[in-house]
Amino acid sequence: MTTIKDSVHDHIEVEGVAADLLDTPAVQRLRHIKQLGTVQLAYPSANHTRFEHSLGVYHLAEQALEHMDVDGIDAERVRAAAMLHDVGHGPFSHNIESLTHRETGKYHDDVDELLAQGQVGDVLRRNGLDPSRVAGLVAGEGKYGQLVSGELDVDRMDYLVRDAHHTGVPYGTIDPGRLVRALQFVDGELVLAPGNVQSAESLLVARALMNPTVYSHHVARISKAMLRQAAERLLRSDPDLTAEELRRMDDHGLIVAMRLCAETAAFARRYAERDLYKRAVWAELGGVPDWLLDADHEDLRELEAEIAGACDLDPREVIVDVASDPAMTESTSRVMVGDEIRELGRQSPLVKALRTAQYQQWRLGVYTVEEASERVGRVAVDILGLEVDGALVSERRGRPATLDEFADAT
Amino acid sequence: MTTIKDSVHDHIEVEGVAADLLDTPAVQRLRHIKQLGTVQLAYPSANHTRFEHSLGVYHLAEQALEHMDVDGIDAERVRAAAMLHDVGHGPFSHNIESLTHRETGKYHDDVDELLAQGQVGDVLRRNGLDPSRVAGLVAGEGKYGQLVSGELDVDRMDYLVRDAHHTGVPYGTIDPGRLVRALQFVDGELVLAPGNVQSAESLLVARALMNPTVYSHHVARISKAMLRQAAERLLRSDPDLTAEELRRMDDHGLIVAMRLCAETAAFARRYAERDLYKRAVWAELGGVPDWLLDADHEDLRELEAEIAGACDLDPREVIVDVASDPAMTESTSRVMVGDEIRELGRQSPLVKALRTAQYQQWRLGVYTVEEASERVGRVAVDILGLEVDGALVSERRGRPATLDEFADAT
Amino acid sequence: MTTIKDSVHDHIEVEGVAADLLDTPAVQRLRHIKQLGTVQLAYPSANHTRFEHSLGVYHLAEQALEHMDVDGIDAERVRAAAMLHDVGHGPFSHNIESLTHRETGKYHDDVDELLAQGQVGDVLRRNGLDPSRVAGLVAGEGKYGQLVSGELDVDRMDYLVRDAHHTGVPYGTIDPGRLVRALQFVDGELVLAPGNVQSAESLLVARALMNPTVYSHHVARISKAMLRQAAERLLRSDPDLTAEELRRMDDHGLIVAMRLCAETAAFARRYAERDLYKRAVWAELGGVPDWLLDADHEDLRELEAEIAGACDLDPREVIVDVASDPAMTESTSRVMVGDEIRELGRQSPLVKALRTAQYQQWRLGVYTVEEASERVGRVAVDILGLEVDGALVSERRGRPATLDEFADAT
Amino acid sequence: MTTIKDSVHDHIEVEGVAADLLDTPAVQRLRHIKQLGTVQLAYPSANHTRFEHSLGVYHLAEQALEHMDVDGIDAERVRAAAMLHDVGHGPFSHNIESLTHRETGKYHDDVDELLAQGQVGDVLRRNGLDPSRVAGLVAGEGKYGQLVSGELDVDRMDYLVRDAHHTGVPYGTIDPGRLVRALQFVDGELVLAPGNVQSAESLLVARALMNPTVYSHHVARISKAMLRQAAERLLRSDPDLTAEELRRMDDHGLIVAMRLCAETAAFARRYAERDLYKRAVWAELGGVPDWLLDADHEDLRELEAEIAGACDLDPREVIVDVASDPAMTESTSRVMVGDEIRELGRQSPLVKALRTAQYQQWRLGVYTVEEASERVGRVAVDILGLEVDGALVSERRGRPATLDEFADAT
Repeated sequence: MTTIKDSVHDHIEVEGVAADLLDTPAVQRLRHIKQLGTVQLAYPSANHTRFEHSLGVYHLAEQALEHMDVDGIDAERVRAAAMLHDVGHGPFSHNIESLTHRETGKYHDDVDELLAQGQVGDVLRRNGLDPSRVAGLVAGEGKYGQLVSGELDVDRMDYLVRDAHHTGVPYGTIDPGRLVRALQFVDGELVLAPGNVQSAESLLVARALMNPTVYSHHVARISKAMLRQAAERLLRSDPDLTAEELRRMDDHGLIVAMRLCAETAAFARRYAERDLYKRAVWAELGGVPDWLLDADHEDLRELEAEIAGACDLDPREVIVDVASDPAMTESTSRVMVGDEIRELGRQSPLVKALRTAQYQQWRLGVYTVEEASERVGRVAVDILGLEVDGALVSERRGRPATLDEFADAT
Repeated sequence: MTTIKDSVHDHIEVEGVAADLLDTPAVQRLRHIKQLGTVQLAYPSANHTRFEHSLGVYHLAEQALEHMDVDGIDAERVRAAAMLHDVGHGPFSHNIESLTHRETGKYHDDVDELLAQGQVGDVLRRNGLDPSRVAGLVAGEGKYGQLVSGELDVDRMDYLVRDAHHTGVPYGTIDPGRLVRALQFVDGELVLAPGNVQSAESLLVARALMNPTVYSHHVARISKAMLRQAAERLLRSDPDLTAEELRRMDDHGLIVAMRLCAETAAFARRYAERDLYKRAVWAELGGVPDWLLDADHEDLRELEAEIAGACDLDPREVIVDVASDPAMTESTSRVMVGDEIRELGRQSPLVKALRTAQYQQWRLGVYTVEEASERVGRVAVDILGLEVDGALVSERRGRPATLDEFADAT
Repeated sequence: MTTIKDSVHDHIEVEGVAADLLDTPAVQRLRHIKQLGTVQLAYPSANHTRFEHSLGVYHLAEQALEHMDVDGIDAERVRAAAMLHDVGHGPFSHNIESLTHRETGKYHDDVDELLAQGQVGDVLRRNGLDPSRVAGLVAGEGKYGQLVSGELDVDRMDYLVRDAHHTGVPYGTIDPGRLVRALQFVDGELVLAPGNVQSAESLLVARALMNPTVYSHHVARISKAMLRQAAERLLRSDPDLTAEELRRMDDHGLIVAMRLCAETAAFARRYAERDLYKRAVWAELGGVPDWLLDADHEDLRELEAEIAGACDLDPREVIVDVASDPAMTESTSRVMVGDEIRELGRQSPLVKALRTAQYQQWRLGVYTVEEASERVGRVAVDILGLEVDGALVSERRGRPATLDEFADAT
Repeated sequence: MTTIKDSVHDHIEVEGVAADLLDTPAVQRLRHIKQLGTVQLAYPSANHTRFEHSLGVYHLAEQALEHMDVDGIDAERVRAAAMLHDVGHGPFSHNIESLTHRETGKYHDDVDELLAQGQVGDVLRRNGLDPSRVAGLVAGEGKYGQLVSGELDVDRMDYLVRDAHHTGVPYGTIDPGRLVRALQFVDGELVLAPGNVQSAESLLVARALMNPTVYSHHVARISKAMLRQAAERLLRSDPDLTAEELRRMDDHGLIVAMRLCAETAAFARRYAERDLYKRAVWAELGGVPDWLLDADHEDLRELEAEIAGACDLDPREVIVDVASDPAMTESTSRVMVGDEIRELGRQSPLVKALRTAQYQQWRLGVYTVEEASERVGRVAVDILGLEVDGALVSERRGRPATLDEFADAT
C-alpha cells in the first residue's frame, strides 16, 4: 500500500493492482498532461494534471467498492480501470482529441492496445487481470463499467470538485462522499439509493454551471482552437511525426515541438505570451444556418481560407470554431424513489431545463488577430450566412452575455 | 473601525454606523439565536447564529457599495440596515415566526418600532439616520432596499455559503465575491452585469438544492413543528407571557421557559434528548385534497385532535404539518444581456424548472409518537382524505424519496 | 450504522456501541454545551459544541483503530470512551470547572458514576462493556487510554482543527489524517512511526499558537472570570441548587438560572450584551510576587474585596484572575527515530521553547467596570505588590503586547 | 483593472502598473515555471506556478499598501516589484539556481537587466517608473524593499499558504489577512503592530514545519540533485547553449532539451517515469566531517567520481548532496511590544529553537541507482569519512526512497 497526499481528498491509500500500476510509465506520463489543457490561460491556478485526477478517481472507486461490498477480481478490475482510465489522453487532454481521433480513429477511452502492451500489460497480467476486460471497463462496458464511465461515474465526481478546487470557481463543489455512499446495484444497474434526487441533480447542475464558466470560457475556446490548428499544421509539416506519436506526447513535448517547427513557431510564441486571437464573431445557435452546423472539418478549413482571403490575411489567422452538437444525451442517471428505479430525466424537471440551457449557452466563434477583428467579423457574417441578430459581431460586442468577465484576455 | 474574525469571510472590518451598532443589546442578542433553529438536530455542526450572519451580510453589503461607488448617507443607511436586518427575529429564527406573526401581526423584517427605540434608535439618530428609513431598507423598500432584501440581496449570498460551511452540505457554495462585483444599478434597478447568467442561476440552484437537503430536512421539519406547538402551548399557559415578549426572547430563554412550564416540559425533554416524533404520513402534493391545503391554523388543530382522538392519543401527540404554499414568487432577478435588462425567469430555463421542482419536493407530514406511527398513519390518511398513491404511510415507508439519509434519527 | 455529516470531517460513520450511545440523554446533552464557552464573545463563529467534537473524536479514534488493526472488545471500549469522553463537562465546558471541582471533587474526566448509571450504563452493559473500564480509558488509564487521553490523543487532534475551523484562526490546522496513520503501539506505548517528528511538533506548536490567540484571548479570560464569579454566587444564593446539579446543567440552564437569580442578574445582563469588565492590570509573570501565585481561592476573594473596598466598589466589581501555574507537564510524546523510541521533549528543541513561551504569555489580570479601571489599576498594583515594569496598568495600556487586536471589545 | 480568479485569494484585482505588466512576455513566462520544481514528484498536486504566486504576492502587497495608506509612486513601485519579483527565476525555480548562479553570477532576485529591457522596461518607463529602482525593491533595498523581500515580506506570506493549498500539507496555513493588517512602518522599519508576537512566530513556525515535510522532502531533494546534475551536463554538452539562455528557459524547454541531448536522455527518461535514484546514505550533521561541509562544487564532483569508480559505476550514477549551510540568518523580524520595537529573535524563545531544529533536520544524502545502493552506502561512508552512528546507510534503512511516504526524511 502506498499513501499519497492529495490536495482534494487528503490521504489516498493506493492498494492492490493500483499500487503496482502507479509506477508504470503510462501512468507517470499523466503527471505531465494538464487536466484542463489551455483553461490555465483563463484560470491561472488550473494547473492540475491527469495524474492527480486519476488518483482521485481511484480513491472514489475504492470507496464505492467498499460501500457496495464488492471485492475479489471484480474490485481489482475496477481499481485497475480507475487508475488507467485516462492513459489514452493525448497532450492537453481533450484539446486536440478531435484531431487525433480523425487521424487514428481512437478517442481517449479507447485503450485496448495501450493496456495490453508494455509495463501496464505486464502488471495487469501478473495480477491475474485480462487487459482487454479492464479496457472494457474504461470504455464503460458491463456492470462495473458504469462505475468507471457512465452517468453516475466516479470520474465526473472527481473532476468537478478538483476543477473547482483548482480554478477557484465553486460551482463544481458537489458532495462526493455522499454520492459514493449512495451508489448501489439493482438488477445490474448502477443507481442512487432513495433520498438522493438532489444528489443526482447536483452532479448535473454542477456541470451545467461549470461548463460556460470554465470549460467553455471563451479564452479557453480560443486558445484550444488555436492549439488544435497548430497541432494539425505540425502533423502536416513534420514527415517523421505520426498521429499515433502525437497522441502519445505529453504537454512539454508538444509545446517544444511547436516551438521548433517553422509552421507553428508563431503559435508557440502566442501561446507562451498569452497573445491570443480575439473574437470577431460570437453567435448564438439561432443565428447559425443548418448547413454550417453540418459542415465537416474540410469545409470549415475552406471557409476559413475564404474569409481570410477576403480580408487579406494568412489562412492561419482566421479560425471558425463550431462548438460540438449541443444535443445532450438523454440523462439516464437512475435514482431509487421508494422501491422503484426512476430515470432522473423523468423525475427531475431540472434535467430538461439543463438541456435547454445548453442550447442557450452554445456559441459559434470566429477568431482572428486583434487588428483585423472588425473586418473579419463583417466578412464572416456574410460568408457564413449568420443572422445579424443572433451574431455578436466584434465591433458591437461590448460585453456579451455569456462571457466570464474574469481572466478575460480579449 | 473594529476588525472581527469570521469563519466564512475571514476578516470583517466594521465601519461607520455599523461599528456603533455592534454593541447595542438588540444586535448582541443575535449571538443567542441560532441561524437555522432546530436544523442542528439534523446537522450537528449547524450552531451558527444570526449575529455572525449579520456581520457577513454587513461585509458583503460593504463590498457591494464599494464596487458600485456608493457612499455618503446612502451607504451609511445600507450599512445600518445590513447590520440590523435580523434584529426582528424571535428565538429559533423562522421556526416560530408563523406563531408570533399570528399573535403580533409582525414578521421578522417588520422592525420599525425596534429601530426607533432604545440604544439602536439612539445610535441611528446620533449618526444622522432616520430609523424609519433604515427599517424601510430592511423591508426591501426603495432603490437600496433591493440590496438588503430582494432577489439579489446580500442576505441570501451570506446565508447560503454560511449554511454550507456549517452544515457541511456543499450545495450552497456560491461565489459571493463574484456576485458583489457584478451588482449594478441600471435605471434604479439592481441588476447583474453582462456575463452573469450563471452567477444568477447559481443563487437559485443553490437554494433549490439546500432546501430539501437542509432547510426542509424531515428532522428539521418535525422538530420545528414540535417546537411551534410547544411555543403556542407556552403562550396559552402562562398568563404573564405576551406574544411580543415571546418574540423578544432568545433561544436560551425559550428553552428554559419550556422546561419550567408543566404544559411544555415533555417537549423540552424530547428536545433535549432528541427524542422526536416520527412520520406517520409523508405525502406528495398530488395526494393532498385542496381543502386541506386551504385549511387554517384552527382547522389543522381540530384535525390533529380528531386524529388523536381516534387513536386514543393526547392531542399534543399528533401534528399535521402542511408545508407553506409551494408557489414560488416569479423570479424577478435581473441580468444584463448585452445592453438589455432581462428577467432571469425568461432568460433561464432553469428558473422554471426550479419552480416545478419545488412542487415535487413539497410534502405534507403527519408526525406522532413512535409507537403509534402505524395507527396514526392509517387514520390520518382516512380523515385527511389523502390519496394512498401520493402518501407514504408509515408502515410502507421504507426509505421514501426525498429523505436525506444522513443524520436521520427517525 | 448511522452516518452523520460533520463540517470538519465530512461524513462520520458511527458504528457498534457508539451508535447506541448516540441517542442517550448524556450524549445528546452535549449539543447544548459550547466547546469553547465564552470564547464566542471574542470569535463570533465559535459556537460549536461538545457534541460535534465528541463525534469527531470518535471518528479519529475509529480511524486509528483501523490503521492499527485493533478490533474486538478493545476497539468497542475505545469507541465508547471516545463518544463519552466529555459527558462529564459542566455548562460552558472548562469555564467553571475549577468551581465544580472545588465543590464536588470531580474534574470533567471523572466519569465513573456517570457511565455506570442511566441509559449510558444500560447501553454499555448491553454491549458487554464494563462502565468502570470505559471510565478508566476516559481518565487515560491503560494502554488504550493513551489514545483517548494522553499526549498523542485523538481528543486534541479533533479540537485543534475544529476550533480553527470555527474561529477562523488557522493556527490549529494540523494534519489529523497523517497523525492517525502514524500512531502505533510499541511495547504497549503509543508512539508515532518514524518520519513524524514534524507531525508531533505540529501538535504542540498548534496548541502554543492557539493558546494566546484563542483560548486565553483576554476577552475570553475576562468573560470566563466573570462567569465563574457569577456561578459561585448562584450556588451560594440558591439553597436548592447543589454543585452536582450545577455540573449537570447545560448552557441554556445556567444562563437562565443566572437571569432569574437576583445576585447574578447583573452579570446575566452584561453577558447578554457583551458589556464586559475591562483590564485594570495585565501583568507579566516576572512582576508577580510568589505569594500571589500561591494564593488560594479564599485569599483571592479577600484581595478582590480589599481592592474593591479601597476603590468604593462592590466586591463583585473587581476580579483578580491568576492564570493557572504556567508549568507545562514535560512533553512525553514519543516518536520513533529509526528503531528507537525517543521522547519528543528530548528530540525536539521546539518543545523546550514552547515551555518558555508559555511563561512569556502568562498574564495576571485584574478586571473591573470600565469607569473604575484606572483607579483599580493603581490600587491593585499596590495591594498585590506587582512590579510596575512587569504590569501594564490600564492607563498606560494603549495596545499591550499579547492582545489579539481582533474582536477586541475592551 | 483586471480581475483574476485565484484558488487561494479568490478574486485578485490587478491595478495600475501591475495590470500593464501582466501581459508582458517576462511575466507570462512564469505560467510555465512550477513554483516548487520537482516537489511535484512527492506531492502530485503541487503543480502551481510562479505566475499565480506572483499574482498572490501582488495581491497581498496591495492590501498592505492600503492598510498602511501608502499611495502615489511609492505604491506603484511596490506593485511593479511584487508582480516582477520572480521574473529572474530559471526553469524549475530554485532547483538549478546554484548552477546558473555559478555560471552567470546572478541569483533569481538579480533582475536589474531584465527589468530594464524589452516590454517590461517599456511598461515601467511608460508608467514613470525607473526600472533600476524597481529592481532595487526586488532585491530588498530601501524602506519598501522590506515589504517585497525581507523578514516580513508578502512573498513568504503567499508561498506558505499557496504551497499548503496545493500540496495538501496544512502546516503552511498562516493568516495572511491578519499579517497584512498588522504591518506598519516605525522610523522607516517594517514592523508588526503590538499584539502580534504569535502572528510573527506563526510565519517562522510554518516555514520550519514545511521545510522538512515539503521543501526538503527526500524525494524532492533526490530529484532536484539529479536535475541539477543533468542541467550541468546539458550545458557542458551543447556548445550553442549559454548559461544565460539556460536561465531564461521555461520548464517545458529544459525538459525537452534534456530529452533531445544524448548526455541527459537517461535522466529525462528517469524524470518522466519517476524512476529516481535511492538514498545510499542519509547522514545527520553530527556525522559529517568539517572538510566535507566546506567542499566546493569541484570537490564534490570528484568525490562522486571516486565513489562511483570504487563501485564500478558511471560517475553520473552517484550524487553527493550536501545541503546548504544550516546557519539560519538571525531572525530580525521586528514586533512592537507596547511602545518598543523588539526583535523577534529576542522576544520569542521559539526562534532560537527553530534555529536548532534546522540543524537537526539537516541531512547529507548520497544517491545512486537502486541496485547499487548498499554498495555505494558502504563505500561512501568510508570515502567521505562519515561517522556510522550519524549515517543511515542504505541497508539498514527500511523505508525506501521513492515512496510518497509523507515527508519521510528519516
